[in-house]
Amino acid sequence: MSDEPAISKSHGRLSISASVKPRDLMADVRVKDAWRAKVITLFPDAFPGTLGLSLTGKALEMGLWELEPIDLRPFGEGRHRNVDDNPAGGGAGMVLRADVVARALDHAAEGTPDDRAQWPVVYLSPRGAPFTQAKAQQWAQAKGLTLLCGRFEGVDQRVIDHYGIEEVSLGDFVLTGGEIAAQALIDATVRLIPRVLGNHVSTEEESFSDGLLEFPQFTKPAVWQGRAIPEVLQSGHHAHIASWRRAMAERLTKERRPDLWRTYCATHDRDPNEDREL
Amino acid sequence: MSDEPAISKSHGRLSISASVKPRDLMADVRVKDAWRAKVITLFPDAFPGTLGLSLTGKALEMGLWELEPIDLRPFGEGRHRNVDDNPAGGGAGMVLRADVVARALDHAAEGTPDDRAQWPVVYLSPRGAPFTQAKAQQWAQAKGLTLLCGRFEGVDQRVIDHYGIEEVSLGDFVLTGGEIAAQALIDATVRLIPRVLGNHVSTEEESFSDGLLEFPQFTKPAVWQGRAIPEVLQSGHHAHIASWRRAMAERLTKERRPDLWRTYCATHDRDPNEDREL
Repeated sequence: MSDEPAISKSHGRLSISASVKPRDLMADVRVKDAWRAKVITLFPDAFPGTLGLSLTGKALEMGLWELEPIDLRPFGEGRHRNVDDNPAGGGAGMVLRADVVARALDHAAEGTPDDRAQWPVVYLSPRGAPFTQAKAQQWAQAKGLTLLCGRFEGVDQRVIDHYGIEEVSLGDFVLTGGEIAAQALIDATVRLIPRVLGNHVSTEEESFSDGLLEFPQFTKPAVWQGRAIPEVLQSGHHAHIASWRRAMAERLTKERRPDLWRTYCATHDRDPNEDREL
Repeated sequence: MSDEPAISKSHGRLSISASVKPRDLMADVRVKDAWRAKVITLFPDAFPGTLGLSLTGKALEMGLWELEPIDLRPFGEGRHRNVDDNPAGGGAGMVLRADVVARALDHAAEGTPDDRAQWPVVYLSPRGAPFTQAKAQQWAQAKGLTLLCGRFEGVDQRVIDHYGIEEVSLGDFVLTGGEIAAQALIDATVRLIPRVLGNHVSTEEESFSDGLLEFPQFTKPAVWQGRAIPEVLQSGHHAHIASWRRAMAERLTKERRPDLWRTYCATHDRDPNEDREL
């Protein structure tokens, strides 16, 4: 053993004290360089919100990830800290000012890597590329990210262009603001960070992890409302169970999401019209 | 005038008092039969969350819509109110029990119409049909809806089948639970209910309202970081501005979302390969 405590090297933890027992260490030490989300918003009170509950909330308390809401208001113009103005060319609603958003982005950028692969800077907008599980996996590999929440009619296009901000959409619908979308993106990403989920759920067998929707699940009671759990699941025959689940996942995907099914078949050398027996 | 106060008939308000002045009435009377969301969840504290802020929060306070979180826990089994059990056939995680969820659904159904068009019953799951703006518009026309938030590995398939529950997905990614997804769906729906947005934003010119992504927006200052607002937007010529915005919306949609662009062209009698001048 060297002079330094081995645990701080091998586990990447911050500042441990020699007087603290190993068991105590597990409970509340911060993880060194934990994944961090910075969220620029007019509603910092929205955070952590639901992210502070359940597994993401426990992981936040344990320091497995960090959340920094950045209030946009103090970066506003003049005595009233105005953040928005009328859209050029007319129309309803208000547009967030480029100069105001730029000041908040510059503040958020302090202490973060310039490499966007290491630290994505994202504007939540229905005009963006749809968010996917692949994007969540990519972001979970980064050191953190900065999310800009829109409000009103959006953000001056020039600040998006100037900073080369990545536009990401939660889906083909419009929200009052970016805050709920930010929480969804952070939740989907944080749960992929090691140790966040613990043993509670599996990320390997779930929807999209292999390009298929997840197979149907059943639990006790064995019969409910005259409906029995499928026999194969009670057979104890692991290979049959795995094969049934795979066939169900494929059938569901084919029926419900022909778009995912075509992609799956192309990448798995499958004939999209073939049905496997259940 | 009849004996009944005319205002309660013509505006659909609940229980007004003759002593209250009309101006006061606007502030806090409940709207009769306001749109209502019932949310079955293991985390009732997650609500209203972000929905309680901003315009959706003001509308909630004004009674333009109502939110009823229903705690799943009291419907659980036995002394410990267990709501889940191991998946039949093995595997990681836990599955919400059909009988437990059924009791919560029965409770939620009290006082709601049986017609699912009037009151959709929805399970939030990545295996569902992707949520869209069209779905939000459809739900905003209903009297309300019941949302079931999943957790862990999901819900026993038999309760979904038995109740004919509509499965809806926020997008092709996996969340820790359905709570944030429920908030997104409610936000997208509630903002389409009359008077919720007021004059703050327009729902007519925004993304997806006509099958196109929204055009870029600009506001003061006229020049920022050497970038000027496009000249046409400062021309004051309304027809030119409208035409530029339409062309930009089309170009953006074509570049970023070929899927939306193909649908738009098919429904608008447009050649998908034609470019309009900007």
